[in-house]
Amino acid sequence: MKNDEIMKVDQNQNQAKTKIIMHPIGIIHSPYKESRDIPIQGTFNHRVEAWIELEDRYAKGLKDLNGFSHAILIYYFHKSKRERIEGKPFLEQDKHGIFAIRSPNRPNHIGFSVVKIKSIEGNKIYFTEVDILDGTPLLDIKPYIKYFDNRCDVVSGWVDKHFKDGKIPDGTIIK
Amino acid sequence: MKNDEIMKVDQNQNQAKTKIIMHPIGIIHSPYKESRDIPIQGTFNHRVEAWIELEDRYAKGLKDLNGFSHAILIYYFHKSKRERIEGKPFLEQDKHGIFAIRSPNRPNHIGFSVVKIKSIEGNKIYFTEVDILDGTPLLDIKPYIKYFDNRCDVVSGWVDKHFKDGKIPDGTIIK
Repeated sequence: MKNDEIMKVDQNQNQAKTKIIMHPIGIIHSPYKESRDIPIQGTFNHRVEAWIELEDRYAKGLKDLNGFSHAILIYYFHKSKRERIEGKPFLEQDKHGIFAIRSPNRPNHIGFSVVKIKSIEGNKIYFTEVDILDGTPLLDIKPYIKYFDNRCDVVSGWVDKHFKDGKIPDGTIIK
Repeated sequence: MKNDEIMKVDQNQNQAKTKIIMHPIGIIHSPYKESRDIPIQGTFNHRVEAWIELEDRYAKGLKDLNGFSHAILIYYFHKSKRERIEGKPFLEQDKHGIFAIRSPNRPNHIGFSVVKIKSIEGNKIYFTEVDILDGTPLLDIKPYIKYFDNRCDVVSGWVDKHFKDGKIPDGTIIK
């Protein structure tokens, strides 16, 4: 599909009226059926496994992804029914701007996770470090490249206090 | 807008026919007018500065983002006119699957960058570590959280050989 066709730019430069149309490239299957099932430790849990069922016609696009230990998944928060400008994160009761938290109730409802690749078989990718709901529509897969995606000297705002001494928080607050 | 309205799921479960409609939340302004202007070192260059002009109505969503040193930007490769299943990356002549490279000519044309926040003023975010074209429509901003987004023991497939001894490659191959 040509890009000109899928992005209709409003002549008045009103971005809110510009439409960008996307299509899922596959579906993510995971053991988490509800948001409340996903532990904050999901990201760090190597026992929980999930898998991607890519549309057959994209299978060739996975060539050489098996050389990478991690992948970036960009997906659509299909269960999120609200769009908020502020919200409370999983970890605390304080409100923050929607762009300072990872809540699904955000403009465009785009989700992002770094996952660990276990194996790739045909159009299926098996992975761990899962924090994604079952049935989530997948929009893109990118190789995790440490030279671009890892950062030193990172300050993580309101989150840092929850990971003092490198400890993973025990639980989350689900609203 | 309700999510039910923006995602029309095809009853036959054909993902290719499912439409997800997104709207830019703002525009990225950068010194790079063409792809060939963007050096591989863009990511590592702290002198080049860019800025985001967020739609006014989203400005409140930036609350507390200034506590973070880095942000994840998810944007739309608006200049990409093609969709490819394989491609050659900036760094070499070998072909790889589209999901093993960062090419803009990918399904859904979604771009992803980690950038360093310099300052936030009203609806504007100034940042460095820029590898994004001028005029790019922005889809989302997320806080970069080191506990989720940094990974140890990363293997970066075909890319690793280009960064031997921790050196940044001199140049890129632009097609």
